Amino acid sequence: MKLLVEPKFDLYVDIITSRAKSRKDVIQLQWGELAAKPPKKISEFFLEGYAKGKVRYTAPHGDLELREAIKEKLRRKNKIDADIDNIIVTTGGTAAINFVFRIIAGDGGYIIIQDPSWFGYTGIANYVGAKTIRVSEIKYGYEEFKRVYDEIRGKGGEVRGIVLNYPSNPTGHVFDVDTMKEALDFAEDYDVLLISDEAYEDYVFEGEHVSIGSIKGIEKVLSVFTLSKTYAFTGLRIGYAVGAKEIIDAMATAQVHTYISPPALNQYVAMKILRENLDRPFVEENLKLLRSNLKIVKEFIHENSWEIIEPKGGIYAFIRLPRIKSPDFALKLLEEKKVAVAPGVDFGDKWVDWIRITIAKSEDEIIEGLKRMRELYLEEIKPPCC
Amino acid sequence: MKLLVEPKFDLYVDIITSRAKSRKDVIQLQWGELAAKPPKKISEFFLEGYAKGKVRYTAPHGDLELREAIKEKLRRKNKIDADIDNIIVTTGGTAAINFVFRIIAGDGGYIIIQDPSWFGYTGIANYVGAKTIRVSEIKYGYEEFKRVYDEIRGKGGEVRGIVLNYPSNPTGHVFDVDTMKEALDFAEDYDVLLISDEAYEDYVFEGEHVSIGSIKGIEKVLSVFTLSKTYAFTGLRIGYAVGAKEIIDAMATAQVHTYISPPALNQYVAMKILRENLDRPFVEENLKLLRSNLKIVKEFIHENSWEIIEPKGGIYAFIRLPRIKSPDFALKLLEEKKVAVAPGVDFGDKWVDWIRITIAKSEDEIIEGLKRMRELYLEEIKPPCC
Repeated sequence: MKLLVEPKFDLYVDIITSRAKSRKDVIQLQWGELAAKPPKKISEFFLEGYAKGKVRYTAPHGDLELREAIKEKLRRKNKIDADIDNIIVTTGGTAAINFVFRIIAGDGGYIIIQDPSWFGYTGIANYVGAKTIRVSEIKYGYEEFKRVYDEIRGKGGEVRGIVLNYPSNPTGHVFDVDTMKEALDFAEDYDVLLISDEAYEDYVFEGEHVSIGSIKGIEKVLSVFTLSKTYAFTGLRIGYAVGAKEIIDAMATAQVHTYISPPALNQYVAMKILRENLDRPFVEENLKLLRSNLKIVKEFIHENSWEIIEPKGGIYAFIRLPRIKSPDFALKLLEEKKVAVAPGVDFGDKWVDWIRITIAKSEDEIIEGLKRMRELYLEEIKPPCC
Repeated sequence: MKLLVEPKFDLYVDIITSRAKSRKDVIQLQWGELAAKPPKKISEFFLEGYAKGKVRYTAPHGDLELREAIKEKLRRKNKIDADIDNIIVTTGGTAAINFVFRIIAGDGGYIIIQDPSWFGYTGIANYVGAKTIRVSEIKYGYEEFKRVYDEIRGKGGEVRGIVLNYPSNPTGHVFDVDTMKEALDFAEDYDVLLISDEAYEDYVFEGEHVSIGSIKGIEKVLSVFTLSKTYAFTGLRIGYAVGAKEIIDAMATAQVHTYISPPALNQYVAMKILRENLDRPFVEENLKLLRSNLKIVKEFIHENSWEIIEPKGGIYAFIRLPRIKSPDFALKLLEEKKVAVAPGVDFGDKWVDWIRITIAKSEDEIIEGLKRMRELYLEEIKPPCC
């Protein structure tokens, strides 16, 4: 029988993870999960919700009480003004991205994504029948969008959406307000949807996170958030999106046909987490670690004449080790030095001599990982002469 | 912007539910959730799992310990012999159905479904780009499959899969072993996949549930199970599927691109539930209620010269009220008599004068619901003469 989805994972980071996972002696810097455990208090919310009978399907848009808590959080933290009707709860932010890609571009439409960008976007797009086109994230703006839009139209295609992921995975890029305004203008002029992926909203190193949905309303914006990163609780699988009612309603239809509704008790727990503002002390603690680790990474890179795209937020460092071939280097690093990293090519073909490491681990692991990377680098890359 | 998924719910049962949901005075017989609360002990498993740190993403196929518990359950309860590699955990059984439809028929291939059948199949198929064709469930067998297969091929289409849902929603139909063998033979001869939806495996009124996967191996079968119905815990959103490794691997890829992995703590809880065999006493209690309610329903129907397709299992009664138009009747029943039911047309166009009610409610609610249905029926359907 012909299968229409290829039963394989073709990312190098998956290969590296599957080789590294059962080995306790490997320093695992390849994924972006915070090392911290989520706040202990959260376990009480499960008991409470269970006792209250939060064990059934919820409405297709998600539990009403949770959506009210989200509305309040969006107003308070993101300065996004939305009604309950503009909000949907999903099984992690990923499901929201899957649904919106399917809804606006599942017939082969194009979505502009950042270069480099999280590999999930291309995987999801491909799965739902959409196409992606990469645009350098530092070139994001009206003129560049227009150029790409015309180029795609010239080939008979249509640009339907633009992803803005900030702080980004892998570089930690943050868009400034002027760029966001240009994106909003372009979205209006050319009827495309801005998909604002704000999974790392809490991890901004300087100043405050600014949501694009706070600038000119949400008519042309679908903003996606998650509790996964803020609370180091990726296993909760609760995310949410805010946008125009007709898109939110279509996403609810998609949700019903995919898994009916997100898990009920998890939605109750998410509601309690948001209501009790558990985030600040927990996030501050993590931010302290990230800032301190980033400083170490930057110093190390400077000493070794490597290169870094300085992250303005997020939980990664995207690093250039001149002249390496990243998949080979990463595989060798795992085998010979017992350090797992994500090869740059997973984030775009041209990032051959780049790798991504997480900075959300202990200082000791980061330092030891970097030292071993240098060892291999010096063995592999002989000086240009002699 | 053109949306490729229509932002609406076109089932009558959804309209009825949305009108009924906020009204405490309505007897709600339209959905199939068991009235019983899931076992209290389950809440302890959440605490335990949280303390053990089950809060991260799991592998794309699901948590390994849970898959081991599932393997054991399949062997013990379903007599299905499977390896870990043949098992995937999904966010409810619905996600498994969504993934397999997408994988085998997402390019416009056909899936044979029962007539009548759960409305989810057509909704899911339409969403993932597959088509469905209805075959009377009492005609299921080699010859009928061949006839439909040829008919579709004659129109340039391809049959890729056959759904067997037993006990079925809405009729409680159960396939006998001879029919299952014919389906297996047909699947081999014509390279189609049998999708065995066994969500109601625990609610069989006579004898034992026989899984099609126990007859001739799982090479041509993808069997889908869920914890939702067995434990009255639809909100847990944990289901699983067992089948050929290449299909399970493709489903894992689909899962990653849809929501990464099912919620971790929920998977831990599912593992504990399966390991501790919490099902028997809980299921026996529910079965007692279902059998007793079914007796009441059958007597009532007999007295009123209505008709029932006698269920051999499941949690519904599918009832014919001669000469009604089911959507209008159901809407009027809600407005005037405050009883919510699911109109027959939601389960197939030809079931116009049928309705589905749940039998998983209290005896009092069922009796009062039936009485009010009769009141309206007598008001609406005047005798043929005078």
